[in-house]
Amino acid sequence: MALTIGVDIGGTKIAAGVVDPEGRILRQAKRPTPFGDGELLAEAVAELVGELRKEGDGEEVAGIGVGTAGFVDENRSRIVLAGNLGLAGDPVRERIARRLDLPVVVENDANAAAWAEVRFGAGRGCRDAVVVTLGTGVGGAIIMDGELRRGRFGAAGEIGHYRMVPFGRRCACGNQGCWEQYASGRALVAEARDLAAADPDRAARLLELAGGDPGRIEGPEITRAAREGDQGAIDCFATVGAWVGAGLADLAAILDPECFVIGGGVSEAGDLVLAPAREAYARAVTGRATRRLAEVRAAELGSAAGIIGAADLALR
Amino acid sequence: MALTIGVDIGGTKIAAGVVDPEGRILRQAKRPTPFGDGELLAEAVAELVGELRKEGDGEEVAGIGVGTAGFVDENRSRIVLAGNLGLAGDPVRERIARRLDLPVVVENDANAAAWAEVRFGAGRGCRDAVVVTLGTGVGGAIIMDGELRRGRFGAAGEIGHYRMVPFGRRCACGNQGCWEQYASGRALVAEARDLAAADPDRAARLLELAGGDPGRIEGPEITRAAREGDQGAIDCFATVGAWVGAGLADLAAILDPECFVIGGGVSEAGDLVLAPAREAYARAVTGRATRRLAEVRAAELGSAAGIIGAADLALR
Amino acid sequence: MALTIGVDIGGTKIAAGVVDPEGRILRQAKRPTPFGDGELLAEAVAELVGELRKEGDGEEVAGIGVGTAGFVDENRSRIVLAGNLGLAGDPVRERIARRLDLPVVVENDANAAAWAEVRFGAGRGCRDAVVVTLGTGVGGAIIMDGELRRGRFGAAGEIGHYRMVPFGRRCACGNQGCWEQYASGRALVAEARDLAAADPDRAARLLELAGGDPGRIEGPEITRAAREGDQGAIDCFATVGAWVGAGLADLAAILDPECFVIGGGVSEAGDLVLAPAREAYARAVTGRATRRLAEVRAAELGSAAGIIGAADLALR
Amino acid sequence: MALTIGVDIGGTKIAAGVVDPEGRILRQAKRPTPFGDGELLAEAVAELVGELRKEGDGEEVAGIGVGTAGFVDENRSRIVLAGNLGLAGDPVRERIARRLDLPVVVENDANAAAWAEVRFGAGRGCRDAVVVTLGTGVGGAIIMDGELRRGRFGAAGEIGHYRMVPFGRRCACGNQGCWEQYASGRALVAEARDLAAADPDRAARLLELAGGDPGRIEGPEITRAAREGDQGAIDCFATVGAWVGAGLADLAAILDPECFVIGGGVSEAGDLVLAPAREAYARAVTGRATRRLAEVRAAELGSAAGIIGAADLALR
Repeated sequence: MALTIGVDIGGTKIAAGVVDPEGRILRQAKRPTPFGDGELLAEAVAELVGELRKEGDGEEVAGIGVGTAGFVDENRSRIVLAGNLGLAGDPVRERIARRLDLPVVVENDANAAAWAEVRFGAGRGCRDAVVVTLGTGVGGAIIMDGELRRGRFGAAGEIGHYRMVPFGRRCACGNQGCWEQYASGRALVAEARDLAAADPDRAARLLELAGGDPGRIEGPEITRAAREGDQGAIDCFATVGAWVGAGLADLAAILDPECFVIGGGVSEAGDLVLAPAREAYARAVTGRATRRLAEVRAAELGSAAGIIGAADLALR
Repeated sequence: MALTIGVDIGGTKIAAGVVDPEGRILRQAKRPTPFGDGELLAEAVAELVGELRKEGDGEEVAGIGVGTAGFVDENRSRIVLAGNLGLAGDPVRERIARRLDLPVVVENDANAAAWAEVRFGAGRGCRDAVVVTLGTGVGGAIIMDGELRRGRFGAAGEIGHYRMVPFGRRCACGNQGCWEQYASGRALVAEARDLAAADPDRAARLLELAGGDPGRIEGPEITRAAREGDQGAIDCFATVGAWVGAGLADLAAILDPECFVIGGGVSEAGDLVLAPAREAYARAVTGRATRRLAEVRAAELGSAAGIIGAADLALR
Repeated sequence: MALTIGVDIGGTKIAAGVVDPEGRILRQAKRPTPFGDGELLAEAVAELVGELRKEGDGEEVAGIGVGTAGFVDENRSRIVLAGNLGLAGDPVRERIARRLDLPVVVENDANAAAWAEVRFGAGRGCRDAVVVTLGTGVGGAIIMDGELRRGRFGAAGEIGHYRMVPFGRRCACGNQGCWEQYASGRALVAEARDLAAADPDRAARLLELAGGDPGRIEGPEITRAAREGDQGAIDCFATVGAWVGAGLADLAAILDPECFVIGGGVSEAGDLVLAPAREAYARAVTGRATRRLAEVRAAELGSAAGIIGAADLALR
Repeated sequence: MALTIGVDIGGTKIAAGVVDPEGRILRQAKRPTPFGDGELLAEAVAELVGELRKEGDGEEVAGIGVGTAGFVDENRSRIVLAGNLGLAGDPVRERIARRLDLPVVVENDANAAAWAEVRFGAGRGCRDAVVVTLGTGVGGAIIMDGELRRGRFGAAGEIGHYRMVPFGRRCACGNQGCWEQYASGRALVAEARDLAAADPDRAARLLELAGGDPGRIEGPEITRAAREGDQGAIDCFATVGAWVGAGLADLAAILDPECFVIGGGVSEAGDLVLAPAREAYARAVTGRATRRLAEVRAAELGSAAGIIGAADLALR
């Protein structure tokens, strides 16, 4: 049985786990992420791996998969951009591999988590899938013909930054109208704050939960109010969900997946956002009178997806 | 040397050719397309193939690749929709294979032509490419990691029908704002006619070429006027080109290809449309300050692409 | 009691009536509109007036108000554009006045009808009102401080051609995204036909009423299906109504009227279109948390408005 | 000769002047604006007026016109909203009139300044004009048939908050896509900062002037760079100017003015913004093939407009 170790390098902590071929995590360990020093980072990873291997006395580990915050180059070798790790250009794979007698595979953490969902989570069985992560922004990963597709320079799946609305809302990327300005957690919060500014009556419960200050309305307040049945909050989710669905329709036109897996913090609101997303998708996708519609599913693996996906990628 | 035969089934004629592994057409033949009868169609294909093989005395043919108008199912076996062939649901592969002692591969004709461009034309050497066909509408094909990607149900690459503009121009597909309403030959003509209606002075040359009737302005008039230096016509191409580039930026965010190959009738206007497309693309693509930009190239193989691509697909 | 005669020159018939100061039509007469000959047209008007005066033996008529199809110049004297009368540039007032011993006032027919609504119909009592006519296209008239405002060149109130959507649907005026492409009777029909094309199930009843042919769905079918409770048809009205409301919000930001009077064929569907219009307006108008909202009322005078308004304008 | 006194109450200072019927300021005085106390404010105004009258020994003053920051009610009597004065609901006219033996007229300060431009500045001679103020936001005033039109509730001319782009940029008013998000000083700065973020090369000079920090690019840096010929900065003005022109086209469709007067800080850049505005306007206005185009003029009176306009309104 080929076990592998998956490592998930986030901005604050590194989590690692021994994973079996069915995607089950057998053991885990973690430690804080050192900032701005590639050698220290590699050392921390190597120590975590060593610790996990020591515990599994006699166990055979076939490889290490590393999912890391930041943008990974097309050779899956260097971290090209990773502001929150302070490691632009760092040859992360080589640094780690030098410390271990095992093959090392490096991948962007969002891709790793997406891969886990397709292999063992909501997308299992789908050879063609798009994983959409609705977090503060919107991220994505594309699986076609059973493999993660990274594009020529490793940047495929930047779906949060295709343009949904010409001359639309400004995005930190310098463009206007990016999908993530409409379909993300940030968009949900902005929607609720705008409601509070323009229509305090409809936002009464939201304002109450935020102590009367529109600027303090955050995701949890919106989710709570919506679950209580507050119409203003439900409408905020419906608006964001409709934008999610509009984007899925575009992605379906381009990629024709079998399923969409929707993860990230916003997706935890479940049908508050997924129901309007499904409806908008079904009403907007081209050829809807005859085509077979991709399913829209909620992600299943939560925060463990990063470790699991990285571990599985080590086998490929 | 593995020769194959490529067959290109269009609405009016079937063209076929013996193709070598370098994508060269050694011999060609053609005949009219029979309408609405799958057996007659298969018979015509078989006869063309027989004719080509007979001429190549002693030559070894390894397989037949068929590119056909219409939508091909995910098993590359049936024509699902093909209004202009009158053959919805026809088991085209089986009909042809039954008549020949050779393996038969069927593909959508646009995909086949795109494949030729990536193998032997403007996109050669690119393992990640998007081929965009600017015809009356806009079609496309996606190559990732060196293979044509068809999506789960064979419908990937319907890039003309992702939504460029919310509440935009109505499309025959029943949606609004589809890319092809902005970036196609039809859009070019509409642009010119609108100019003639709203601003006859700026459209003076276009109107002259169309005998004074805005409704008679078609692509050739626009191209001719633009090549003469007429500013109104040049502006029409610039507008359409800018929309082309805007779409490329979206596709780059999602797919991150190494190159875009632009084909179809509109692309024959060359830099009249490609220069503004490249400029708009470079100004709009997300991450443009740091990313490596995909090249935007004109297709090279013209109408032979269908035969060549189909022939090459027979080997895969 | 100052009676006046109102004349309503349409594309097919001329209607005229003796109107009292309360806006009541005492007597009417009509005849066909002569095409393309200003003298014949003036003669027909003069005869109608003569006929009406003869019947009112001893009655004093203070003036003639003429509302005419087409665009009237800023001196309310000439018909500048009137394709369906064939009379571009015709000095209509002078031709009519020469035949009568009464003061003659000429006005665009839409303005005349709007004026009637504000004086005697749904907008009575409002010194600041916008009349919106939802016909095949969208027309309008602006009343501020108790008077019809015509703008410098007589073209104020072309509200159907302000731009609702950048790069939106093409309009016959040569622009894109004009409000009337979204909020008119034509838009309603397009909405229903698109539904039938893209989603035949939801359009089943509409298709049935149109004999199965999407291209035969017209306004009456949509109204009938909606009144029967058909959800697809109701949604078409809701979509158009929401666009109406979006436009009212814009007009309120600019003009701050006390009321909107909504007339034209589409308005006859009543709350099918007005309820979503009111809701969209209330949700979209700037400053809605504190401002006083203009009322949105259905027009009351129907086709008599043209005569009544023209007659009343004769007194001013 | 009927002299009047115009008073301009701003957030930080009150300026007042004696104005003759030709709109000339004979004498001026000013003092700081007291915050949050209507009596103190009125007292300060009365003292300024007294001071000015004392100097003009024997001079006859016919009335006082007050232009004030904030929203003035439809009776031109109360300040309804004026965050920066701290005086919501204050009966400003009555407070001032009680202290003086002269008729007092109160108006919103933007309206007062606009009126000055139409009476004595760039719009003189125009009975139908729209004054557009491109400041941090976008304000406006509407003159039709020779009078300022305030709408039913005094809110007409909120042209910065009609919707230019559906689902566009969020506005502090709680809406999305308001014109002022595209055509204001704030929009100009956002444009430049986005350029610096997305395309540092094209923004090199702008960044240099801002000490390398995109967040420090403000209006003066953009104007300076543009005047030096920097293409990036010129493009920022061109973008904003094009949006200005697009809005003028909408306003022309609705209001058909004889001229537009463009004031406010952004307008001081002159043709950098006005030339693209004029061009965009001429290319976008409906009916442009036949209509007479309103002129687009730069405001002439600068900061004195508030006093002059208020003074002139005192005579009406």
